[in-house]
This record gives sequence, structure tokens and C-alpha cells, in this order.
Amino acid sequence: MITLKRLDQQDARLLIEGAAAKAREIGIPMCIAITDESGNLIAFERMDGGKISSVIVSQDKAYTAAAARKATHEYNAACVPGNLVFGIHTSQGGRLCVVGGGLPVVVDGEVVGGIGLSSGSPQQDMDCAQAGIDHFNSDRA
Amino acid sequence: MITLKRLDQQDARLLIEGAAAKAREIGIPMCIAITDESGNLIAFERMDGGKISSVIVSQDKAYTAAAARKATHEYNAACVPGNLVFGIHTSQGGRLCVVGGGLPVVVDGEVVGGIGLSSGSPQQDMDCAQAGIDHFNSDRA
Amino acid sequence: MITLKRLDQQDARLLIEGAAAKAREIGIPMCIAITDESGNLIAFERMDGGKISSVIVSQDKAYTAAAARKATHEYNAACVPGNLVFGIHTSQGGRLCVVGGGLPVVVDGEVVGGIGLSSGSPQQDMDCAQAGIDHFNSDRA
Amino acid sequence: MITLKRLDQQDARLLIEGAAAKAREIGIPMCIAITDESGNLIAFERMDGGKISSVIVSQDKAYTAAAARKATHEYNAACVPGNLVFGIHTSQGGRLCVVGGGLPVVVDGEVVGGIGLSSGSPQQDMDCAQAGIDHFNSDRA
Repeated sequence: MITLKRLDQQDARLLIEGAAAKAREIGIPMCIAITDESGNLIAFERMDGGKISSVIVSQDKAYTAAAARKATHEYNAACVPGNLVFGIHTSQGGRLCVVGGGLPVVVDGEVVGGIGLSSGSPQQDMDCAQAGIDHFNSDRA
Repeated sequence: MITLKRLDQQDARLLIEGAAAKAREIGIPMCIAITDESGNLIAFERMDGGKISSVIVSQDKAYTAAAARKATHEYNAACVPGNLVFGIHTSQGGRLCVVGGGLPVVVDGEVVGGIGLSSGSPQQDMDCAQAGIDHFNSDRA
Repeated sequence: MITLKRLDQQDARLLIEGAAAKAREIGIPMCIAITDESGNLIAFERMDGGKISSVIVSQDKAYTAAAARKATHEYNAACVPGNLVFGIHTSQGGRLCVVGGGLPVVVDGEVVGGIGLSSGSPQQDMDCAQAGIDHFNSDRA
Repeated sequence: MITLKRLDQQDARLLIEGAAAKAREIGIPMCIAITDESGNLIAFERMDGGKISSVIVSQDKAYTAAAARKATHEYNAACVPGNLVFGIHTSQGGRLCVVGGGLPVVVDGEVVGGIGLSSGSPQQDMDCAQAGIDHFNSDRA
């Protein structure tokens, strides 16, 4: 039997709080998705003004980061024609997302969930995802 | 040009609060999904212990209730073999959900969103969805 | 509660009229799709001779332009390997379309819908989409 | 943070062993799928002669039993026209399977995985799934 850790609802709210605070700071209303370590949704918030297309994209980023245990921007860097990773972005009907903005949530070296942001530029999405993780980590410290 | 109303994030939190309170009262951790009037997700919460399969089912119930402007249990009653509605449950890859637990959110006679609950029996899901709407309405009163 | 504006059927007809006039001028029968601000179809016309595959492509272009509030050719310019946006084109089963020919419809700074054209070259599709918007705007002026 | 238990590879092999032994006894080569508690595949075996269509069906049964924490034949009993559960069988593109032959794997009152069998009659599938669980439990006793 395997014993594993998974984000709970309180953890998810911390991640969303941190990400939303950064999104407000930069003035971009975001879609924010939090998944468990298997990529299944725990919590989601579309800030007022977040993009409709980002509802799915943010969830796919969080799914990818958690389920593949890799930041989506790292997949993006590797997913170039000629590289053997290229093509991974069409997997699972495109659910495996290689657009920047998805980060695994790591506790004690173990992936316990994922956070995905969408509505800004990939760099803005990444910054807000990181802000979510920073807020989560500082609360746990 | 059409002018319409749509739930905002604060409205969505009220709906979730009311539904979650009822879910705690009956001891069934639920997945709770809130969509706008077009069926696109605004907010989602998987209470600790909510079922994995309910992540999608709750969203599909909320989508259906909002987009079709009809409670999913009303579709369920009509979706019986021999009735001309039968078959609607396979529409859109099954996203159109006829299982009880999805309710449209109505303000001033206009559908402004949907709420979908899943993890309990359909009746429990319906009760919690109604509790969400009651809480939302009492706050607005 | 959010109050928002959405194209109505009369608006949609204006957009199609302008796009179809341009399509006739350049001699390319087109598929023309108009969506609301959430990306859901309001009106569609396959001019006699329009391509079958364009039935879906035109809708996806209109969906993307509205739901992501961005012209599909702008996504196209950013969606190159090595750029952090790369991969967005496979999102939602490929429904998020980065082929030129989809434009958001903007009124008073707010996205109220989308127009998507398909059957010609991307530049022809873009020209016809723009012609639809020009006709719509001149009617409102 | 939530701490949970999940089947490991050794557990999965025990479940398959028990199910395959029963399948050989009744002379029906089966597809046997084992998932974790979230419904994701851990192990799979298509016995020589197992049906091709059962490759997916067995996985969907195991997914459903684990993710919904319910035997698929229990869903089957409730999923009759006029019952509020009716329609659940088309959810998630039909992945939520209500055909008999999927059972949750429970340890200390907690669902830690799922087993799904397909290729025989539903009753045969159910018998083999149960045999897998019996073998797993007797090994742990």
C-alpha cells in the first residue's frame, strides 16, 4: 500500500488567495485552478473578468503540472520540433498543456497538487501561479 | 444588443457557502460547481472527501441547469423511454446531465447562473443545491 | 452581479452581411460564424460553395476570438515553438483556434461577441471578418 | 493536507491473480483493470482471448468503482428510467460505467482503488472481480 499526501480545501484556498492577490496587483483578472496530486480539481475561481477560454486552460495547466509533476513552462521549453518531447501537447485531446502558467505544488519533496493560471500572458500566469505557491509556503512555514 | 446579468464571484461564494453548510449538516462532503448563465465555470469546491467522479458530474449539472434553464431533475422526469425528450442525456458527449442535483439560479425572472452538486444521492444533491440558492436569495433579500 | 452586453440576432445579421459582401467581392464562398461573448453560436451561414471543413473551423475561430478576447491571428503570431504560448492551439481538443480569420467584436471597449470566417486563405478569411466588423460598426455609427 | 492510502503494484498483482484464477476456472478469458483510488490505471492484463472492446470497458468499470466509491452493479440497479440517478451512465463521455463488473477496493473502511472485469456476462465479470478482492483480502489477513 502506498501512503501519500494531497492538498485539502484549506490548502487550496491559500493557493488561490496568493495567486488572486498577485493578479489584482498586476490588474489582470485570472482563472485559477487547483488540483490534487492526480490532477483532479479541488477548487477553482474565475475572478470577475477572467477569460472564458481560460476556464479550461487553467484546469489543464494545473492537471498537467500535478499529473506530470512538471511546470508547464518546462514542457514548453522542451516541446519544440526536432526534440523528442515534441508532440506531447496533443496528448489526451490537448489536456496535457505546455503553455506556461502551471506549477506543481511540492511539500517535503512530494508533489501534492497543482496550480494553473490563465487569462494573462504566460509570464503573468506564471508569476501569479508562483505567488500562489509562495503564499501557501509562507503560511506553512 | 442584449443586456444580461451574470453571477459574479461574490454571488458564487454565497451559493457555495449555503450548499456546503447543508452538506456538512447531512454529513456528505460534496463537489459544488457554480457556472454563469452560459454554463461556464465561475467557482468550484471539492469539499474534503468529495468524490472524484463528482468533479465532472457537478460541473455538468451546473452547466445543464444554466445553459438549458432547467433543473436537471426536471429533465430526469421527462427523460424516459417513449417520451420525446428521451435521449437528451447523451447530448454533448453526456455533458447534458439529467441526474438530479443541478438548479438554475434565477434573479428577477432571469437565469443568471447554475449550481450543481454531486457526491450524495440525487435527493441529497438537490437539497444541497437548493440550500445554496436559499442562502444566496436570503443574502439578497 | 455582473451586467454585460451581448450581440443580438440583428447585430449578427449585420456582421454576416458585411463579411458575405466581401466574400462575394473576392469570389470566395465562405463559412461565417457569429458567437456571443462567451463563444456560443448566435448565427451561421455557409454561403453556397463554402467548404465543409470550414463549418467547424469558422465556429472555432469565432469561439476563440470571443472567449479569449483576442484575434486568432494574434494567437498565431505568438504560437511558435519556443514561445511560452506555444501549445495553446491544441487546447480544448483543438477548439482554441490560432488560424487567422477570427476577430472579437468590441463595443465601447467590451467584447460582445466573435466572428469567424473560413474557406479562403487565412488573409482572405481575416479580410472578410474585418469587413463584417466594419459593416457592423458603420451601421451603429 | 490529506493523507490517504493507495494500492501499490504488489496489491494490484494480487487483485489480478485472484480475478484471473476465477476467470480460468469458469473458462472465460478476461480483461482485468486495476486503478488507484482516483481511478487512474495501475495495472492491466488482457488474458489471451480477452475481448478487444473490454480493454476500455474494464478500465471504465474500475475507474467508476474507485472514483465514485460504488460497485458498478449498484449504479446499474439505480440507473433506471424514472429514477433520479438515471443518466449517470452517459457522464464523462460514457466513462462512468454502470455495467456490472466494477468493485471498489476497500481497506480499513477507505477506498484505495478499483477493480474492473470485462469479457464475460456481467455476473461472470462481477464474480471474477469479487474473486480478485477475496484473494487480495486473504493475503492481507
